[in-house]
Amino acid sequence: MTQAPCITVSTPLSASLDVPLPVLGADVLVPLASGGQIDYAALDCAASAPAARAVWDEVAAFAPHYAGVHRGAGQLSLRATELFERSRAEVAAFLGCRPGDQVVFTRSTTDSLNLLAGALPEGTRVFAFASEHHALLLPWRRHPLTCLPVPRSAAEAVRAVDEALAARPAGTPALLCVTGASNVTGELWPVRELVAVARRHGARVVLDAAQLAPHRAVDLGELDVDWVAFSGHKLYAPFGSGVLAGRGDWLSEAEPYLAGGGATRVVTRGSDGRLAVEWARDEARHEAGSPNVIGALAVAAACRALAAVGFEAIEAHERRLLGVVREGLASVPGVRELSLFGSGADRVAVVSFTVAGREAADAARELSERYGIGVRAGMFCAQPLVRELLDAEADAGCEGPEAAVRVSFGAGTPLAHAERLVLAVRELAA
Amino acid sequence: MTQAPCITVSTPLSASLDVPLPVLGADVLVPLASGGQIDYAALDCAASAPAARAVWDEVAAFAPHYAGVHRGAGQLSLRATELFERSRAEVAAFLGCRPGDQVVFTRSTTDSLNLLAGALPEGTRVFAFASEHHALLLPWRRHPLTCLPVPRSAAEAVRAVDEALAARPAGTPALLCVTGASNVTGELWPVRELVAVARRHGARVVLDAAQLAPHRAVDLGELDVDWVAFSGHKLYAPFGSGVLAGRGDWLSEAEPYLAGGGATRVVTRGSDGRLAVEWARDEARHEAGSPNVIGALAVAAACRALAAVGFEAIEAHERRLLGVVREGLASVPGVRELSLFGSGADRVAVVSFTVAGREAADAARELSERYGIGVRAGMFCAQPLVRELLDAEADAGCEGPEAAVRVSFGAGTPLAHAERLVLAVRELAA
Repeated sequence: MTQAPCITVSTPLSASLDVPLPVLGADVLVPLASGGQIDYAALDCAASAPAARAVWDEVAAFAPHYAGVHRGAGQLSLRATELFERSRAEVAAFLGCRPGDQVVFTRSTTDSLNLLAGALPEGTRVFAFASEHHALLLPWRRHPLTCLPVPRSAAEAVRAVDEALAARPAGTPALLCVTGASNVTGELWPVRELVAVARRHGARVVLDAAQLAPHRAVDLGELDVDWVAFSGHKLYAPFGSGVLAGRGDWLSEAEPYLAGGGATRVVTRGSDGRLAVEWARDEARHEAGSPNVIGALAVAAACRALAAVGFEAIEAHERRLLGVVREGLASVPGVRELSLFGSGADRVAVVSFTVAGREAADAARELSERYGIGVRAGMFCAQPLVRELLDAEADAGCEGPEAAVRVSFGAGTPLAHAERLVLAVRELAA
Repeated sequence: MTQAPCITVSTPLSASLDVPLPVLGADVLVPLASGGQIDYAALDCAASAPAARAVWDEVAAFAPHYAGVHRGAGQLSLRATELFERSRAEVAAFLGCRPGDQVVFTRSTTDSLNLLAGALPEGTRVFAFASEHHALLLPWRRHPLTCLPVPRSAAEAVRAVDEALAARPAGTPALLCVTGASNVTGELWPVRELVAVARRHGARVVLDAAQLAPHRAVDLGELDVDWVAFSGHKLYAPFGSGVLAGRGDWLSEAEPYLAGGGATRVVTRGSDGRLAVEWARDEARHEAGSPNVIGALAVAAACRALAAVGFEAIEAHERRLLGVVREGLASVPGVRELSLFGSGADRVAVVSFTVAGREAADAARELSERYGIGVRAGMFCAQPLVRELLDAEADAGCEGPEAAVRVSFGAGTPLAHAERLVLAVRELAA
């Protein structure tokens, strides 16, 4: 570290509290390369967000009462079971689930999508854009995947899906994978239009809401999607759980995701030594093993906390910060924002960019060491997309960087952190 | 509730502290049907144990510093990554892992065994006793399972495995599933002898240590098993994580358990629209998605806490309580303990029993409502075994109950709770 730091005095901690959703870590100080300390700016929420204080408080209050669910006769077991199932109902309400929908607790979005992949009927064709993150591209190992080229406008996306679904053999079951918001550019996808096209062609739709759910209301009924998947750790509830919610028909017929206790109704061993198993038909079918009770109640607490704040307030806060970050970065020479659909497209609080002449990893390291800002550098588990967007930059005459820097934030991020980021990038780019 | 309660005065809470491993919940009071309150006796540790205080303290200290691992460039992300990988190393040390062994973080024993099932080479034959719990019986869906009859002695178990392995087609890969301790009777299985037989026949061995790891040291090298699986929530770390540890060769070659980000090295989309994926070869191969950092560090903290107390002290404490419970129950007319290998067999702190003329579910409910004791009634996710043991009772002239009551405890259970259990069962049976 040879450069002098631009910031030596810590941002007043009270500034951190002016957020719609208070989170843990607002008072965590990290050292600066120049000496001194600063409050950590957690600007990597698209990877994992800090725990909401409300979530943590519920976990802490519950911890001494922890007991296994669905199995014990003791008072704490019964209470934990009630709480676990109430958490399921709260998540269902948060997502606007319809009668017949199931809410399966998984460990993450990735896990949810792998579960769904195992539940697709034989012969189902899967359609996804190459711009998706790997969790939405890779789970369909036992089904033919049509990987559509990265579209450069919402209309192009809709057209591509229309053509691809029309071209499939008539009558074959189909699943369209739609991302709510890109984990690289934050841009919103035309979910309603894509669903309408899918419906016209008799295809089902899974919405990957990993990046959408922390920022916008997701209502299954209103969006008319069949399933939605998201992760607790991006929704301010980092306790090892995620959710797959939606239509129960394929799920009830599918081979259980995990085989083991809790997913079975009856297991018998015949005189020939063979086991006969009758599997559960509700969510338990895919939740074998002791459920992650704390993870489930943390996700439910996050849903409740977000609903209490209201997505209007959250969106207003995030738009304000997004304006500061995007306008700030746009004013720095050599900084280019990655975009799928153009700078005017609506988006959530995720911005990826390159800095001319700086390796992304170096820039991210300096943001951390000199400014106490946590971001991510790389391909963001969406290698085909990032490669394409970077190649497009190279085509436009840029140097052709190998990776990008991503800044992402949320309802717990104070304005001061957005301002610090712009200041820091301006210095780095100078 | 018509019967008068036998206990109206709470056990002094200080009594709860006289345990080798302090746990949360020692001060949780539950109401008694008779009025009043009592400290909850968590005697269902074989299902899920309370969190160790040391585990909770580490989780609470870490929570404000939570950040995603393996992905971010920020200081908290780097620290979390370091902590996550250190947790892996600590679990490896706790389990006596050998060079080349992997420690994969899963969500539970069930998950671990499902992962292993997906990693068996084509054509592997699996051998397990019908006495196992479902997590060890059911995951082998793509492989032929030889389900051996419930043995009634350790020698019979060894003989049955010897014969079954000898009878398989020469040269076929084989996996023997061995339980460390029965989740129904607590009885220890002859692991060393079974491993010796397996080795003689060129079979590999997976040890299900879900019920063993909280009570006895488990050392992969010393036991010479290929893999071990256990759950955090039975090891005083109920934060949604489990472990599969052992030989890396099959794991590195296997299809990734979950497909998604984190498990990949490179993903490219060819001009033909096909995706080419290069998967990681270490533990990350099977850990796609953002890892459950808090779950992993909780398991590591539990391993550290147990190692610090020492299994000698834990075993001495549990043997004392086990003596109180078993001798106490044996002295109650009409109470019969379930056993595989006879009452003299060595066992961990798990005891299942029936009470003549009482439904198990009723007895468990009364233990909860009248005495504040949490136990479990049913078949314990080991239906074939429980059915066989209960049928054996019926053969012996008993009434033929449909389920049993299970009492289980551990290093955090005070003596007073064992005494209360005996007192309560005596009253219930009267």
